[in-house]
Amino acid sequence: MDSKQQQLYLGIDGGGSKCKAVILNKDMQILGEGIAGAANPFHSLEKAQSSIVAAAELALDDANLDKSLVSDLIAGIGLAGVNLPKYFKLMNAWQHPFKSMHLATDLHIACLGAHNGSDGAIMITGTGSCGYVSVGGDSLIIGGHGFPHGDICSGAWLGFQAVEKVLLSYDGIIEPTLLTDKVFEQLNCTDSNTLVETIAGHGATYYGRLAISVFDAADAGDDVAKAIINEGCEYFVRVFNKLKSKGDVNLSLIGGLKPRLVQWLPSEVAENIVDAQNPPEVGAVLFAINEENKT
Amino acid sequence: MDSKQQQLYLGIDGGGSKCKAVILNKDMQILGEGIAGAANPFHSLEKAQSSIVAAAELALDDANLDKSLVSDLIAGIGLAGVNLPKYFKLMNAWQHPFKSMHLATDLHIACLGAHNGSDGAIMITGTGSCGYVSVGGDSLIIGGHGFPHGDICSGAWLGFQAVEKVLLSYDGIIEPTLLTDKVFEQLNCTDSNTLVETIAGHGATYYGRLAISVFDAADAGDDVAKAIINEGCEYFVRVFNKLKSKGDVNLSLIGGLKPRLVQWLPSEVAENIVDAQNPPEVGAVLFAINEENKT
Repeated sequence: MDSKQQQLYLGIDGGGSKCKAVILNKDMQILGEGIAGAANPFHSLEKAQSSIVAAAELALDDANLDKSLVSDLIAGIGLAGVNLPKYFKLMNAWQHPFKSMHLATDLHIACLGAHNGSDGAIMITGTGSCGYVSVGGDSLIIGGHGFPHGDICSGAWLGFQAVEKVLLSYDGIIEPTLLTDKVFEQLNCTDSNTLVETIAGHGATYYGRLAISVFDAADAGDDVAKAIINEGCEYFVRVFNKLKSKGDVNLSLIGGLKPRLVQWLPSEVAENIVDAQNPPEVGAVLFAINEENKT
Repeated sequence: MDSKQQQLYLGIDGGGSKCKAVILNKDMQILGEGIAGAANPFHSLEKAQSSIVAAAELALDDANLDKSLVSDLIAGIGLAGVNLPKYFKLMNAWQHPFKSMHLATDLHIACLGAHNGSDGAIMITGTGSCGYVSVGGDSLIIGGHGFPHGDICSGAWLGFQAVEKVLLSYDGIIEPTLLTDKVFEQLNCTDSNTLVETIAGHGATYYGRLAISVFDAADAGDDVAKAIINEGCEYFVRVFNKLKSKGDVNLSLIGGLKPRLVQWLPSEVAENIVDAQNPPEVGAVLFAINEENKT
Protein backbone atom coordinates (compact mmCIF):
# COMPACT_ATOMS: atom_id res chain seq x y z
CA MET A 1 0.00 0.00 0.00
CA ASP A 2 1.31 3.44 -0.81
CA SER A 3 0.88 6.21 1.71
CA LYS A 4 -2.00 7.79 -0.20
CA GLN A 5 -4.00 4.55 -0.02
CA GLN A 6 -3.39 4.39 3.70
CA GLN A 7 -4.61 7.92 4.35
CA LEU A 8 -7.32 7.89 7.02
CA TYR A 9 -9.95 10.53 7.61
CA LEU A 10 -11.66 11.59 10.78
CA GLY A 11 -15.17 13.04 10.63
CA ILE A 12 -16.57 14.83 13.67
CA ASP A 13 -20.11 16.02 14.34
CA GLY A 14 -20.09 17.89 17.63
CA GLY A 15 -22.94 19.57 19.47
CA GLY A 16 -24.28 20.60 22.82
CA SER A 17 -24.91 17.08 24.11
CA LYS A 18 -22.48 14.78 22.29
CA CYS A 19 -19.67 14.41 19.79
CA LYS A 20 -19.75 11.71 17.13
CA ALA A 21 -16.58 10.55 15.38
CA VAL A 22 -16.07 8.32 12.38
CA ILE A 23 -12.89 6.96 10.77
CA LEU A 24 -13.04 6.56 6.99
CA ASN A 25 -10.52 5.33 4.48
CA LYS A 26 -9.99 7.10 1.16
CA ASP A 27 -12.69 4.94 -0.43
CA MET A 28 -15.16 6.42 2.04
CA GLN A 29 -15.59 3.13 3.89
CA ILE A 30 -16.44 3.48 7.56
CA LEU A 31 -13.78 1.69 9.63
CA GLY A 32 -14.85 2.73 13.10
CA GLU A 33 -17.11 4.99 15.12
CA GLY A 34 -16.99 6.63 18.54
CA ILE A 35 -19.17 8.86 20.67
CA ALA A 36 -17.95 11.19 23.43
CA GLY A 37 -19.37 14.13 25.41
CA ALA A 38 -20.45 17.65 24.49
CA ALA A 39 -18.46 19.56 21.88
CA ASN A 40 -19.91 23.05 21.53
CA PRO A 41 -17.08 25.61 21.94
CA PHE A 42 -19.69 28.29 22.77
CA HIS A 43 -20.32 26.39 26.02
CA SER A 44 -16.73 25.24 26.69
CA LEU A 45 -13.75 25.35 24.37
CA GLU A 46 -11.68 22.91 26.46
CA LYS A 47 -14.53 20.43 26.77
CA ALA A 48 -15.16 20.59 23.02
CA GLN A 49 -11.51 19.85 22.27
CA SER A 50 -11.22 16.99 24.77
CA SER A 51 -14.51 15.46 23.53
CA ILE A 52 -13.26 15.55 19.92
CA VAL A 53 -10.01 13.76 20.85
CA ALA A 54 -11.87 11.25 23.03
CA ALA A 55 -14.35 10.46 20.25
CA ALA A 56 -11.51 10.15 17.70
CA GLU A 57 -9.61 7.70 19.93
CA LEU A 58 -12.78 5.64 20.50
CA ALA A 59 -13.35 5.51 16.73
CA LEU A 60 -9.73 4.40 16.11
CA ASP A 61 -10.14 1.71 18.78
CA ASP A 62 -13.43 0.61 17.17
CA ALA A 63 -11.51 0.28 13.88
CA ASN A 64 -8.82 -1.84 15.63
CA LEU A 65 -6.31 0.90 15.00
CA ASP A 66 -3.75 2.27 17.44
CA LYS A 67 -4.49 5.58 19.20
CA SER A 68 -1.12 6.90 18.03
CA LEU A 69 -2.57 7.09 14.50
CA VAL A 70 -4.49 10.18 15.62
CA SER A 71 -1.58 12.26 14.30
CA ASP A 72 -2.01 10.72 10.83
CA LEU A 73 -5.67 11.67 10.52
CA ILE A 74 -7.00 14.35 8.20
CA ALA A 75 -9.84 15.72 10.31
CA GLY A 76 -13.08 17.28 9.13
CA ILE A 77 -14.73 18.83 12.15
CA GLY A 78 -18.26 20.16 12.17
CA LEU A 79 -19.37 21.90 15.34
CA ALA A 80 -22.35 23.75 16.74
CA GLY A 81 -21.42 27.23 17.94
CA VAL A 82 -18.76 28.01 15.33
CA ASN A 83 -21.30 29.95 13.26
CA LEU A 84 -20.31 32.71 15.70
CA PRO A 85 -17.03 34.13 14.30
CA LYS A 86 -15.48 34.43 17.77
CA TYR A 87 -15.82 30.70 18.44
CA PHE A 88 -14.76 29.72 14.93
CA LYS A 89 -11.53 31.66 15.47
CA LEU A 90 -10.91 30.23 18.95
CA MET A 91 -11.54 26.69 17.76
CA ASN A 92 -9.46 27.11 14.62
CA ALA A 93 -6.49 28.28 16.70
CA TRP A 94 -6.47 24.92 18.51
CA GLN A 95 -3.09 23.14 18.64
CA HIS A 96 -4.88 19.97 17.53
CA PRO A 97 -3.22 16.52 17.49
CA PHE A 98 -4.25 15.68 13.89
CA LYS A 99 -2.29 15.79 10.64
CA SER A 100 -4.58 18.57 9.51
CA MET A 101 -7.91 20.01 10.61
CA HIS A 102 -10.74 21.55 8.59
CA LEU A 103 -13.40 23.30 10.63
CA ALA A 104 -16.99 23.97 9.59
CA THR A 105 -20.39 24.47 11.18
CA ASP A 106 -22.47 21.45 12.14
CA LEU A 107 -25.01 22.71 9.61
CA HIS A 108 -22.52 22.70 6.75
CA ILE A 109 -21.28 19.16 7.36
CA ALA A 110 -24.86 17.90 7.82
CA CYS A 111 -25.76 19.48 4.48
CA LEU A 112 -22.69 18.04 2.72
CA GLY A 113 -23.43 14.62 4.22
CA ALA A 114 -27.11 14.70 3.28
CA HIS A 115 -26.35 15.58 -0.34
CA ASN A 116 -23.11 13.56 -0.64
CA GLY A 117 -20.95 16.64 -1.09
CA SER A 118 -23.23 18.38 -3.59
CA ASP A 119 -25.05 21.67 -3.18
CA GLY A 120 -28.25 21.27 -1.21
CA ALA A 121 -30.41 22.39 1.66
CA ILE A 122 -31.36 20.88 5.01
CA MET A 123 -34.00 21.57 7.58
CA ILE A 124 -33.14 20.29 11.04
CA THR A 125 -36.09 19.59 13.31
CA GLY A 126 -35.12 17.83 16.51
CA THR A 127 -35.07 19.45 19.94
CA GLY A 128 -34.13 22.63 18.07
CA SER A 129 -34.73 23.70 14.48
CA CYS A 130 -32.67 25.35 11.77
CA GLY A 131 -32.62 25.72 8.01
CA TYR A 132 -29.44 25.77 5.92
CA VAL A 133 -28.60 25.94 2.24
CA SER A 134 -25.24 25.72 0.48
CA VAL A 135 -25.04 26.65 -3.21
CA GLY A 136 -21.87 27.29 -5.19
CA GLY A 137 -19.78 28.02 -2.11
CA ASP A 138 -22.39 30.44 -0.79
CA SER A 139 -24.51 29.51 2.23
CA LEU A 140 -27.41 30.79 4.28
CA ILE A 141 -28.68 29.93 7.77
CA ILE A 142 -32.36 30.49 8.54
CA GLY A 143 -33.46 30.32 12.18
CA GLY A 144 -31.63 28.27 14.79
CA HIS A 145 -31.72 31.13 17.26
CA GLY A 146 -32.45 28.85 20.19
CA PHE A 147 -35.19 28.18 22.72
CA PRO A 148 -37.56 29.71 23.69
CA HIS A 149 -37.29 32.80 21.43
CA GLY A 150 -36.49 30.91 18.21
CA ASP A 151 -36.43 27.36 16.81
CA ILE A 152 -40.02 27.43 15.63
CA CYS A 153 -41.36 24.02 14.61
CA SER A 154 -38.76 22.25 16.77
CA GLY A 155 -39.69 19.69 19.40
CA ALA A 156 -39.03 22.22 22.17
CA TRP A 157 -41.20 24.81 20.43
CA LEU A 158 -44.07 22.34 19.95
CA GLY A 159 -43.88 21.30 23.61
CA PHE A 160 -43.76 24.91 24.78
CA GLN A 161 -46.82 25.84 22.71
CA ALA A 162 -48.60 22.85 24.23
CA VAL A 163 -47.87 24.05 27.78
CA GLU A 164 -49.16 27.54 26.93
CA LYS A 165 -52.37 26.07 25.53
CA VAL A 166 -52.81 23.69 28.47
CA LEU A 167 -52.55 26.60 30.92
CA LEU A 168 -55.08 28.59 28.88
CA SER A 169 -57.46 25.63 28.88
CA TYR A 170 -57.05 25.14 32.61
CA ASP A 171 -58.04 28.78 33.10
CA GLY A 172 -61.09 28.32 30.89
CA ILE A 173 -59.77 30.81 28.31
CA ILE A 174 -59.87 28.09 25.66
CA GLU A 175 -61.67 24.74 25.75
CA PRO A 176 -59.66 21.88 27.26
CA THR A 177 -59.01 19.11 24.74
CA LEU A 178 -57.23 15.77 24.53
CA LEU A 179 -53.93 17.71 24.44
CA THR A 180 -54.64 19.00 27.97
CA ASP A 181 -55.03 15.42 29.21
CA LYS A 182 -51.98 14.18 27.35
CA VAL A 183 -49.68 16.90 28.72
CA PHE A 184 -51.00 16.55 32.29
CA GLU A 185 -50.53 12.78 31.97
CA GLN A 186 -47.02 12.98 30.52
CA LEU A 187 -45.91 15.39 33.27
CA ASN A 188 -47.85 13.56 35.97
CA CYS A 189 -49.75 16.73 36.97
CA THR A 190 -53.36 17.31 37.92
CA ASP A 191 -53.71 21.11 37.91
CA SER A 192 -52.07 24.27 36.61
CA ASN A 193 -50.23 25.01 39.88
CA THR A 194 -48.42 21.67 39.89
CA LEU A 195 -47.84 22.00 36.14
CA VAL A 196 -46.19 25.41 36.63
CA GLU A 197 -44.08 24.02 39.50
CA THR A 198 -43.12 20.96 37.44
CA ILE A 199 -41.94 22.85 34.36
CA ALA A 200 -40.11 25.58 36.34
CA GLY A 201 -36.49 25.98 35.32
CA HIS A 202 -36.55 23.41 32.53
CA GLY A 203 -35.08 24.02 29.10
CA ALA A 204 -35.36 22.90 25.51
CA THR A 205 -34.72 19.18 26.04
CA TYR A 206 -37.53 18.95 28.60
CA TYR A 207 -40.05 20.74 26.40
CA GLY A 208 -38.85 18.73 23.41
CA ARG A 209 -40.10 15.55 25.06
CA LEU A 210 -43.63 16.97 25.11
CA ALA A 211 -43.70 17.08 21.29
CA ILE A 212 -44.83 13.45 21.31
CA SER A 213 -48.01 14.46 23.19
CA VAL A 214 -48.70 17.13 20.57
CA PHE A 215 -48.32 14.67 17.69
CA ASP A 216 -50.32 11.96 19.50
CA ALA A 217 -53.17 14.40 20.19
CA ALA A 218 -53.06 15.76 16.63
CA ASP A 219 -53.15 12.24 15.17
CA ALA A 220 -56.27 11.63 17.25
CA GLY A 221 -57.87 14.72 15.69
CA ASP A 222 -57.27 17.28 18.48
CA ASP A 223 -57.82 20.74 16.96
CA VAL A 224 -55.54 22.60 19.40
CA ALA A 225 -52.65 20.20 18.74
CA LYS A 226 -53.28 20.38 15.00
CA ALA A 227 -53.25 24.19 15.12
CA ILE A 228 -49.87 24.13 16.89
CA ILE A 229 -48.37 21.76 14.34
CA ASN A 230 -49.88 23.70 11.44
CA GLU A 231 -48.35 26.95 12.77
CA GLY A 232 -44.99 25.17 12.95
CA CYS A 233 -45.42 23.82 9.44
CA GLU A 234 -46.32 27.27 8.13
CA TYR A 235 -42.94 28.46 9.41
CA PHE A 236 -41.29 25.35 7.92
CA VAL A 237 -42.75 26.16 4.49
CA ARG A 238 -41.54 29.77 4.69
CA VAL A 239 -38.03 28.58 5.56
CA PHE A 240 -38.24 25.96 2.80
CA ASN A 241 -39.13 28.63 0.22
CA LYS A 242 -36.38 30.90 1.49
CA LEU A 243 -33.81 28.11 1.18
CA LYS A 244 -35.07 27.18 -2.29
CA SER A 245 -34.78 30.81 -3.37
CA LYS A 246 -30.97 30.42 -3.11
CA GLY A 247 -31.00 27.77 -5.85
CA ASP A 248 -32.95 24.79 -7.15
CA VAL A 249 -31.42 22.24 -4.80
CA ASN A 250 -32.67 19.19 -2.94
CA LEU A 251 -33.79 19.53 0.66
CA SER A 252 -33.34 16.90 3.35
CA LEU A 253 -35.18 16.81 6.64
CA ILE A 254 -32.90 15.84 9.53
CA GLY A 255 -33.63 15.25 13.21
CA GLY A 256 -35.84 13.29 15.53
CA LEU A 257 -39.11 14.97 14.53
CA LYS A 258 -38.89 13.90 10.89
CA PRO A 259 -41.07 10.75 11.06
CA ARG A 260 -43.92 12.55 12.84
CA LEU A 261 -43.65 15.92 11.12
CA VAL A 262 -43.42 15.02 7.45
CA GLN A 263 -47.07 13.93 7.13
CA TRP A 264 -48.21 17.40 8.33
CA LEU A 265 -46.29 19.29 5.65
CA PRO A 266 -48.13 20.40 2.51
CA SER A 267 -47.69 17.74 -0.18
CA GLU A 268 -45.87 20.13 -2.54
CA VAL A 269 -43.21 20.54 0.16
CA ALA A 270 -43.17 16.94 1.43
CA GLU A 271 -42.65 15.51 -2.06
CA ASN A 272 -39.65 17.80 -2.53
CA ILE A 273 -37.85 16.33 0.47
CA VAL A 274 -35.14 13.75 -0.25
CA ASP A 275 -33.56 11.32 2.21
CA ALA A 276 -30.15 12.25 3.59
CA GLN A 277 -27.44 10.12 1.90
CA ASN A 278 -24.90 10.20 4.73
CA PRO A 279 -24.83 11.28 8.36
CA PRO A 280 -23.22 14.64 9.30
CA GLU A 281 -19.93 13.07 10.48
CA VAL A 282 -19.42 11.57 7.01
CA GLY A 283 -20.24 15.01 5.62
CA ALA A 284 -17.37 16.30 7.76
CA VAL A 285 -15.00 13.96 5.93
CA LEU A 286 -16.36 15.10 2.55
CA PHE A 287 -15.67 18.65 3.70
CA ALA A 288 -12.10 17.79 4.74
CA ILE A 289 -11.39 16.06 1.39
CA ASN A 290 -12.73 19.09 -0.51
CA GLU A 291 -10.57 21.44 1.52
CA GLU A 292 -7.46 19.25 1.09
CA ASN A 293 -8.01 19.23 -2.68
CA LYS A 294 -8.03 23.04 -2.65
CA THR A 295 -4.51 23.17 -1.20
CA MET B 1 -57.78 58.62 73.55
CA ASP B 2 -59.07 55.16 74.32
CA SER B 3 -57.11 52.16 73.17
CA LYS B 4 -59.43 51.54 70.23
CA GLN B 5 -58.73 54.98 68.82
CA GLN B 6 -55.04 54.40 69.11
CA GLN B 7 -55.11 51.11 67.22
CA LEU B 8 -52.66 51.18 64.31
CA TYR B 9 -52.75 49.03 61.21
CA LEU B 10 -49.94 47.75 59.01
CA GLY B 11 -50.60 47.06 55.36
CA ILE B 12 -48.06 45.04 53.38
CA ASP B 13 -47.86 44.42 49.64
CA GLY B 14 -44.97 42.04 49.01
CA GLY B 15 -43.69 40.62 45.74
CA GLY B 16 -40.66 39.28 43.92
CA SER B 17 -38.78 42.58 43.79
CA LYS B 18 -39.96 44.68 46.73
CA CYS B 19 -42.17 44.94 49.79
CA LYS B 20 -44.26 48.03 50.45
CA ALA B 21 -45.56 48.87 53.92
CA VAL B 22 -48.06 51.45 55.09
CA ILE B 23 -49.16 52.47 58.61
CA LEU B 24 -52.80 53.53 58.93
CA ASN B 25 -54.87 54.69 61.87
CA LYS B 26 -58.42 53.45 62.38
CA ASP B 27 -59.75 56.33 60.27
CA MET B 28 -57.77 54.93 57.36
CA GLN B 29 -55.38 57.87 57.33
CA ILE B 30 -51.90 57.05 56.04
CA LEU B 31 -49.35 57.93 58.77
CA GLY B 32 -46.22 56.51 57.17
CA GLU B 33 -44.81 54.40 54.36
CA GLY B 34 -41.75 52.19 53.87
CA ILE B 35 -40.23 50.06 51.14
CA ALA B 36 -37.89 47.10 51.67
CA GLY B 37 -36.59 44.19 49.60
CA ALA B 38 -38.22 41.14 48.02
CA ALA B 39 -41.02 39.38 49.90
CA ASN B 40 -42.11 36.34 47.92
CA PRO B 41 -42.01 33.27 50.23
CA PHE B 42 -41.88 31.03 47.14
CA HIS B 43 -38.38 32.40 46.52
CA SER B 44 -37.26 32.71 50.17
CA LEU B 45 -39.37 32.47 53.31
CA GLU B 46 -36.71 34.07 55.54
CA LYS B 47 -36.12 36.95 53.14
CA ALA B 48 -39.88 37.58 52.86
CA GLN B 49 -40.24 37.75 56.64
CA SER B 50 -37.23 40.02 57.16
CA SER B 51 -38.38 42.32 54.33
CA ILE B 52 -41.83 42.63 55.89
CA VAL B 53 -40.38 43.59 59.28
CA ALA B 54 -37.89 45.99 57.67
CA ALA B 55 -40.63 47.71 55.64
CA ALA B 56 -42.88 47.93 58.74
CA GLU B 57 -40.12 49.54 60.79
CA LEU B 58 -39.38 52.02 57.99
CA ALA B 59 -43.08 52.93 57.82
CA LEU B 60 -43.23 53.42 61.62
CA ASP B 61 -40.16 55.61 61.40
CA ASP B 62 -41.72 57.58 58.53
CA ALA B 63 -44.77 58.12 60.80
CA ASN B 64 -42.48 59.36 63.61
CA LEU B 65 -43.45 56.35 65.67
CA ASP B 66 -41.17 54.12 67.69
CA LYS B 67 -40.11 50.75 66.25
CA SER B 68 -41.27 49.07 69.45
CA LEU B 69 -44.85 49.77 68.35
CA VAL B 70 -44.47 46.93 65.82
CA SER B 71 -45.97 44.63 68.47
CA ASP B 72 -49.11 46.81 68.63
CA LEU B 73 -49.84 46.61 64.91
CA ILE B 74 -52.69 44.69 63.38
CA ALA B 75 -51.07 43.51 60.15
CA GLY B 76 -52.73 42.80 56.83
CA ILE B 77 -50.18 41.09 54.65
CA GLY B 78 -50.64 40.45 50.94
CA LEU B 79 -47.95 38.42 49.26
CA ALA B 80 -47.10 36.93 45.90
CA GLY B 81 -46.51 33.19 46.12
CA VAL B 82 -49.05 32.40 48.85
CA ASN B 83 -51.61 31.36 46.23
CA LEU B 84 -49.69 28.09 46.49
CA PRO B 85 -51.13 26.36 49.61
CA LYS B 86 -47.68 25.17 50.74
CA TYR B 87 -46.33 28.72 50.97
CA PHE B 88 -49.51 30.09 52.52
CA LYS B 89 -49.14 27.50 55.30
CA LEU B 90 -45.42 28.19 55.81
CA MET B 91 -45.96 31.93 55.91
CA ASN B 92 -48.99 31.68 58.18
CA ALA B 93 -46.97 29.63 60.70
CA TRP B 94 -44.55 32.57 61.11
CA GLN B 95 -43.86 33.64 64.72
CA HIS B 96 -44.47 37.23 63.60
CA PRO B 97 -43.76 40.27 65.80
CA PHE B 98 -47.21 41.88 65.28
CA LYS B 99 -50.27 41.99 67.52
CA SER B 100 -52.06 39.92 64.91
CA MET B 101 -51.47 38.94 61.30
CA HIS B 102 -53.92 38.33 58.47
CA LEU B 103 -52.43 36.79 55.35
CA ALA B 104 -53.81 36.98 51.81
CA THR B 105 -52.55 36.85 48.25
CA ASP B 106 -51.16 40.00 46.63
CA LEU B 107 -54.06 39.69 44.17
CA HIS B 108 -56.70 39.73 46.87
CA ILE B 109 -55.36 42.82 48.64
CA ALA B 110 -54.89 44.63 45.32
CA CYS B 111 -58.52 43.86 44.49
CA LEU B 112 -59.77 44.98 47.92
CA GLY B 113 -57.72 48.16 47.63
CA ALA B 114 -58.89 48.94 44.11
CA HIS B 115 -62.56 48.56 45.04
CA ASN B 116 -62.27 49.96 48.59
CA GLY B 117 -63.16 46.66 50.22
CA SER B 118 -66.08 45.84 47.92
CA ASP B 119 -66.42 42.94 45.54
CA GLY B 120 -64.61 43.56 42.29
CA ALA B 121 -62.14 42.39 39.70
CA ILE B 122 -58.63 43.42 38.70
CA MET B 123 -56.38 42.80 35.76
CA ILE B 124 -52.70 43.27 36.50
CA THR B 125 -50.51 44.10 33.52
CA GLY B 126 -46.98 45.03 34.49
CA THR B 127 -43.91 42.88 33.94
CA GLY B 128 -46.30 39.95 34.48
CA SER B 129 -50.05 39.66 34.04
CA CYS B 130 -52.90 38.15 36.02
CA GLY B 131 -56.65 38.46 36.36
CA TYR B 132 -58.53 38.17 39.66
CA VAL B 133 -62.11 38.50 40.81
CA SER B 134 -63.60 38.41 44.31
CA VAL B 135 -67.37 38.11 44.70
CA GLY B 136 -69.23 37.25 47.88
CA GLY B 137 -66.23 35.63 49.51
CA ASP B 138 -65.54 33.54 46.42
CA SER B 139 -62.55 34.31 44.22
CA LEU B 140 -60.95 33.24 40.95
CA ILE B 141 -57.45 33.69 39.52
CA ILE B 142 -57.02 33.69 35.75
CA GLY B 143 -53.49 33.41 34.36
CA GLY B 144 -50.44 34.61 36.24
CA HIS B 145 -48.55 31.43 35.46
CA GLY B 146 -45.28 33.24 34.86
CA PHE B 147 -42.84 33.98 32.07
CA PRO B 148 -42.32 32.78 29.39
CA HIS B 149 -45.09 30.13 29.31
CA GLY B 150 -47.85 32.36 30.73
CA ASP B 151 -48.54 36.03 31.52
CA ILE B 152 -49.93 36.83 28.10
CA CYS B 153 -50.37 40.57 27.47
CA SER B 154 -47.76 41.41 30.14
CA GLY B 155 -44.74 43.60 29.43
CA ALA B 156 -42.48 40.56 29.38
CA TRP B 157 -44.80 38.76 26.97
CA LEU B 158 -44.96 41.77 24.63
CA GLY B 159 -41.16 42.09 24.67
CA PHE B 160 -40.70 38.38 24.05
CA GLN B 161 -43.08 38.41 21.08
CA ALA B 162 -41.13 41.37 19.71
CA VAL B 163 -37.83 39.46 19.90
CA GLU B 164 -39.39 36.48 18.12
CA LYS B 165 -40.67 38.72 15.33
CA VAL B 166 -37.37 40.61 15.05
CA LEU B 167 -35.50 37.33 14.59
CA LEU B 168 -38.02 36.24 11.94
CA SER B 169 -37.61 39.54 10.12
CA TYR B 170 -33.83 39.30 10.28
CA ASP B 171 -34.09 35.87 8.63
CA GLY B 172 -36.35 37.28 5.92
CA ILE B 173 -39.26 35.06 7.01
CA ILE B 174 -41.37 38.17 7.61
CA GLU B 175 -40.76 41.73 6.44
CA PRO B 176 -38.61 43.87 8.75
CA THR B 177 -40.54 46.85 10.11
CA LEU B 178 -40.01 49.78 12.45
CA LEU B 179 -40.27 47.30 15.35
CA THR B 180 -37.09 45.58 14.11
CA ASP B 181 -35.22 48.90 14.23
CA LYS B 182 -36.64 49.85 17.63
CA VAL B 183 -35.67 46.55 19.28
CA PHE B 184 -32.19 46.51 17.72
CA GLU B 185 -31.75 50.13 18.86
CA GLN B 186 -33.01 49.53 22.40
CA LEU B 187 -30.71 46.52 22.83
CA ASN B 188 -27.83 48.17 20.99
CA CYS B 189 -27.56 45.30 18.50
CA THR B 190 -26.94 45.22 14.77
CA ASP B 191 -27.68 41.64 13.75
CA SER B 192 -29.45 38.49 14.94
CA ASN B 193 -26.29 36.86 16.32
CA THR B 194 -25.54 39.75 18.67
CA LEU B 195 -29.24 39.96 19.53
CA VAL B 196 -29.31 36.28 20.51
CA GLU B 197 -26.11 36.72 22.57
CA THR B 198 -27.51 39.87 24.22
CA ILE B 199 -30.81 38.35 25.33
CA ALA B 200 -29.27 35.04 26.46
CA GLY B 201 -30.14 34.17 30.05
CA HIS B 202 -32.39 37.14 30.68
CA GLY B 203 -35.80 36.87 32.32
CA ALA B 204 -39.12 38.63 32.57
CA THR B 205 -37.86 42.02 33.79
CA TYR B 206 -35.47 42.31 30.85
CA TYR B 207 -38.11 41.44 28.27
CA GLY B 208 -40.60 43.67 30.06
CA ARG B 209 -38.46 46.70 29.25
CA LEU B 210 -38.89 45.97 25.53
CA ALA B 211 -42.64 46.55 25.79
CA ILE B 212 -42.01 50.26 25.29
CA SER B 213 -40.56 49.57 21.82
CA VAL B 214 -43.65 47.55 20.93
CA PHE B 215 -45.99 50.37 21.99
CA ASP B 216 -43.83 53.03 20.33
CA ALA B 217 -43.78 51.10 17.05
CA ALA B 218 -47.51 50.39 17.25
CA ASP B 219 -48.30 54.06 17.90
CA ALA B 220 -46.33 54.86 14.75
CA GLY B 221 -48.52 52.45 12.79
CA ASP B 222 -46.25 49.38 12.69
CA ASP B 223 -48.40 46.39 11.69
CA VAL B 224 -46.22 43.75 13.39
CA ALA B 225 -46.26 45.64 16.70
CA LYS B 226 -50.00 46.23 16.38
CA ALA B 227 -50.59 42.52 15.74
CA ILE B 228 -48.64 41.64 18.91
CA ILE B 229 -50.62 44.10 21.02
CA ASN B 230 -53.91 43.00 19.47
CA GLU B 231 -53.12 39.36 20.28
CA GLY B 232 -52.41 40.42 23.87
CA CYS B 233 -55.64 42.42 24.00
CA GLU B 234 -57.63 39.48 22.63
CA TYR B 235 -56.40 37.48 25.63
CA PHE B 236 -57.19 40.43 27.92
CA VAL B 237 -60.78 40.51 26.66
CA ARG B 238 -61.18 36.76 27.21
CA VAL B 239 -59.91 37.11 30.78
CA PHE B 240 -62.15 40.18 31.29
CA ASN B 241 -65.22 38.20 30.19
CA LYS B 242 -64.23 35.27 32.38
CA LEU B 243 -63.86 37.56 35.41
CA LYS B 244 -67.18 39.31 34.65
CA SER B 245 -68.91 35.92 34.45
CA LYS B 246 -68.36 35.54 38.21
CA GLY B 247 -70.54 38.58 38.91
CA ASP B 248 -71.40 42.05 37.64
CA VAL B 249 -68.51 43.83 39.35
CA ASN B 250 -66.19 46.69 38.45
CA LEU B 251 -62.78 45.93 36.95
CA SER B 252 -59.62 47.93 37.60
CA LEU B 253 -56.48 47.78 35.50
CA ILE B 254 -53.34 47.78 37.64
CA GLY B 255 -49.67 47.86 36.70
CA GLY B 256 -47.14 49.76 34.66
CA LEU B 257 -48.62 48.93 31.26
CA LYS B 258 -51.99 50.56 31.99
CA PRO B 259 -51.36 53.98 30.37
CA ARG B 260 -50.11 52.44 27.11
CA LEU B 261 -52.42 49.43 26.95
CA VAL B 262 -55.83 50.89 27.67
CA GLN B 263 -56.17 52.67 24.31
CA TRP B 264 -55.69 49.34 22.48
CA LEU B 265 -58.57 47.62 24.28
CA PRO B 266 -61.97 47.41 22.57
CA SER B 267 -64.10 50.37 23.72
CA GLU B 268 -66.75 48.12 25.31
CA VAL B 269 -64.00 46.78 27.58
CA ALA B 270 -62.11 50.04 28.12
CA GLU B 271 -65.23 51.91 29.21
CA ASN B 272 -65.93 49.24 31.80
CA ILE B 273 -62.62 49.81 33.54
CA VAL B 274 -62.67 51.94 36.70
CA ASP B 275 -59.72 53.57 38.45
CA ALA B 276 -58.32 51.81 41.49
CA GLN B 277 -59.39 53.66 44.66
CA ASN B 278 -56.48 52.62 46.89
CA PRO B 279 -53.12 50.94 46.40
CA PRO B 280 -52.73 47.23 47.32
CA GLU B 281 -51.06 47.92 50.69
CA VAL B 282 -54.15 49.87 51.79
CA GLY B 283 -56.21 46.94 50.54
CA ALA B 284 -54.17 44.79 52.92
CA VAL B 285 -55.37 46.93 55.84
CA LEU B 286 -58.98 46.67 54.63
CA PHE B 287 -58.48 42.91 54.61
CA ALA B 288 -57.07 42.91 58.15
CA ILE B 289 -59.98 45.01 59.46
CA ASN B 290 -62.50 42.67 57.81
CA GLU B 291 -60.82 39.65 59.34
CA GLU B 292 -60.64 41.28 62.79
CA ASN B 293 -64.36 42.05 62.63
CA LYS B 294 -65.07 38.36 61.98
CA THR B 295 -63.47 37.33 65.26
